[in-house]
Amino acid sequence: MINRKYFLRILWITIWILAAHINILANTYYEGEPKNVKYVFLFIGDGMGHAQVSTTEAYLAALKGNTGFEPLNFSGFPHIGQSTTYANNRLITGSAAAGTALATGKKTNINRISMDPAATVPYETIAEKAKKQGFKVGIVTSVSIDHATPAVFYAHQPDRDMYFEIGIDLINSGFDYFAGGGFLIPDGMWNDQEVNLTTLAAEKGYAVVNSAEAFRNLKPGNGKSLVLSPRTAGGASLPYAIDTHPGDLTLADFTAKGIEMLSGDEGFFMMIEGGKIDWLGHANDAASLVREMIAFSEAVDKALDFYHEYPENTLIIVTSDHETGGLSLGHVATKYETNVELLKYQRSSVEELNKIVAHFRVNQSGDSEEDFNRMLRALEFDLGLHNRKYGTLLDDEEMAVLKELFMTTVMGIGTEKGSYGYSEPFMAKAIEIMNKKAGIAWGTGSHTGVNVPVYAIGTGAERFTGVIDNTDIPKIIGELMGVLSSEF
Amino acid sequence: MINRKYFLRILWITIWILAAHINILANTYYEGEPKNVKYVFLFIGDGMGHAQVSTTEAYLAALKGNTGFEPLNFSGFPHIGQSTTYANNRLITGSAAAGTALATGKKTNINRISMDPAATVPYETIAEKAKKQGFKVGIVTSVSIDHATPAVFYAHQPDRDMYFEIGIDLINSGFDYFAGGGFLIPDGMWNDQEVNLTTLAAEKGYAVVNSAEAFRNLKPGNGKSLVLSPRTAGGASLPYAIDTHPGDLTLADFTAKGIEMLSGDEGFFMMIEGGKIDWLGHANDAASLVREMIAFSEAVDKALDFYHEYPENTLIIVTSDHETGGLSLGHVATKYETNVELLKYQRSSVEELNKIVAHFRVNQSGDSEEDFNRMLRALEFDLGLHNRKYGTLLDDEEMAVLKELFMTTVMGIGTEKGSYGYSEPFMAKAIEIMNKKAGIAWGTGSHTGVNVPVYAIGTGAERFTGVIDNTDIPKIIGELMGVLSSEF
Repeated sequence: MINRKYFLRILWITIWILAAHINILANTYYEGEPKNVKYVFLFIGDGMGHAQVSTTEAYLAALKGNTGFEPLNFSGFPHIGQSTTYANNRLITGSAAAGTALATGKKTNINRISMDPAATVPYETIAEKAKKQGFKVGIVTSVSIDHATPAVFYAHQPDRDMYFEIGIDLINSGFDYFAGGGFLIPDGMWNDQEVNLTTLAAEKGYAVVNSAEAFRNLKPGNGKSLVLSPRTAGGASLPYAIDTHPGDLTLADFTAKGIEMLSGDEGFFMMIEGGKIDWLGHANDAASLVREMIAFSEAVDKALDFYHEYPENTLIIVTSDHETGGLSLGHVATKYETNVELLKYQRSSVEELNKIVAHFRVNQSGDSEEDFNRMLRALEFDLGLHNRKYGTLLDDEEMAVLKELFMTTVMGIGTEKGSYGYSEPFMAKAIEIMNKKAGIAWGTGSHTGVNVPVYAIGTGAERFTGVIDNTDIPKIIGELMGVLSSEF
Repeated sequence: MINRKYFLRILWITIWILAAHINILANTYYEGEPKNVKYVFLFIGDGMGHAQVSTTEAYLAALKGNTGFEPLNFSGFPHIGQSTTYANNRLITGSAAAGTALATGKKTNINRISMDPAATVPYETIAEKAKKQGFKVGIVTSVSIDHATPAVFYAHQPDRDMYFEIGIDLINSGFDYFAGGGFLIPDGMWNDQEVNLTTLAAEKGYAVVNSAEAFRNLKPGNGKSLVLSPRTAGGASLPYAIDTHPGDLTLADFTAKGIEMLSGDEGFFMMIEGGKIDWLGHANDAASLVREMIAFSEAVDKALDFYHEYPENTLIIVTSDHETGGLSLGHVATKYETNVELLKYQRSSVEELNKIVAHFRVNQSGDSEEDFNRMLRALEFDLGLHNRKYGTLLDDEEMAVLKELFMTTVMGIGTEKGSYGYSEPFMAKAIEIMNKKAGIAWGTGSHTGVNVPVYAIGTGAERFTGVIDNTDIPKIIGELMGVLSSEF
């Protein structure tokens, strides 16, 4: 016979052990279900396909004299997937339609900014949902703050080119932190608007920051903030990483400041775009691209620092909207050989190199042979081309092609305007030859339709493996943050 | 007061519940650790990069009039990763060095067949380890059975071109099932060997099968078997999928038979190579490539059928040794447009199309203009080129280029030998134009250095996510099968 006290004690211990086990089991079986993700970083490398990552990793290894890859930080993420990219009405997408998918979980037509294909219905974005639920929201980019990829998170417009209307949407979003290049048309397309977007943002309560000092002094206590890069390049964007001056604010600076501004118990959603990876794909400029990729990964470093502080509540996703340029780490001329380290000799982006062409066009000596020889010296200095020590001497055919282009398009007729800035045929050919000597080829100057990589770390990261549709990404993020509504 | 019987009953129930929970927890916490993987399929799409998969999926969707992708079976696998490909001594690898990494877990130099860089030490392969531990082993390919990718699993030779020695290694391997094209030099390079490899295989106990009927009748009771394709194309390989005749044995047939031959309590390791995806990348022939990819996925279907029968003990990995061709789903000429469905009009592979060129070269009418017009009709019939209804009319520049090539390389001088079969400049250009009209570009005729995809399903599949080195793949498989030794 056992007394009641003894029985109760055993019963109590039994219940306690059962409860503990049930708790563990519950946690186990709910793996994959919504979790307490408070801090979300969505990095979008615009135009970043698998080859952009591999080429950068090969470049970093080659700098150290190694064969193989020196992995970027996000290549070490534990979960990897692929995302489709196609738009509702085109296999090869654009940044607006692809961004809309990544921001709203819905496919739409080319050029729409988070609206339906017919451009009549706005689609609520993951950033708006997060904001409604009390999360802080940050939108960061290396291009103009009203460009398609940032815009799809806060704006709803029929066309990505409606930059002024997109700017108005930005101001009305009430999001907590914006950082990017600038507004493309702060006074309207024809300087025809009664308000200036920067002025209006300040009137609506945004701390507008456009100096390095004000940026350093910006603190969470300043409330909603809009950071516009003190120095910009073409398209109101941050200078290309390869053209960065000491003291320039970088995507990594913007990301670190965003973490400072948004941190807190509310949690946050931050989208950070490496926007000019795409531009360099359009320009087929591999040397500038690998530097831009490194700058992008340096921004990811800032998020990783934060992740290591709050690993239980943080999710970092690094992905892309589409690949740009049809990049190959290999070239028909070099066959199985590569000399990726040659890319280190290029000192300036295609944008700056084009200015050299413009200079030669305006300052002709009257002796075009002599001008061509001066240009060759410029190519050697700025691009590393035609240098015996580097192994980049031009062969007869390359020399003839370049000379022909120099005489016709630099000494003779003018330039053609491309999608992003001016495309100088002479410099484009010089860069193509240098890329070829490095063993790198490009298939197109536009986007391509291949799947892009998805890298994920943190709580819920395992949800991003497999091949997923680009529309799945905000849906999964929304589930993990607990901000989904029936609208998704 | 409670009686002893009641107490014991409660204690018993408590222990039982605890035991059940501990069992569940133990299973849970051991997820990711070695499991009982008895059946392993390693599919290697030689030359299959991300773009090869995406282009095929876009083609399948386009056939149905859809924008986007129709996913291949392995795109639906739950776990996806990437694998590096570089060799010990070159960034852009070759099939021998890449295969050695996939078979042995060790990097080596270009052209080595599972030997160290200095070609002095053989590296034991995952297939050999599995065989030693009592698993059955099958090696299946669509190219010659002694080609680099199959060879690295059973042979150890300094150079991939030592086909006779590789054939001897095959016979001595004692592996249970081989299926492929044929031996490249069954009597030696100069017909100088005293033994014939096929005869020797039979003498050493292999059931040698080289008719469709014998193949159908082949049963596990026949013991070790060597299946050589009854019909072969160039390089002792299976005909390209696009050139397949009714009744031809396919990679899927070889895989299904392999499952039949190897199934049993011992478990098995089977490597199945889609070897001609690579060849079509070298030839830059997109229309034949998408068909070859489909044939490859049909072989994966057979493994999936098996997986659905034995999901607890089966692991399927689909990966690649390297990308070939620098394929872009996008072309500078078509910009953001694609017409991938045009690929359906091509009826024959580049290998067969080259024979048309050879026919014209030999059967000249004496009126080369008339011959060119006949060739244009052949291009329309076999390639779908220059057809108004298809929208593939040649423009003036394309017509001029083709005519020039026809007059010089078909009516005039001879052909140049390429790596794989003969490269006909005229037909290469015609295919290039057709690929361009479809919106597909190629960056090179060789391999490229980008990471390749890894798709995995089954027990342990979650181990293949993230970016892994190609040498990790056999190491993880070996752990999961429990066949690792200190040598790995």
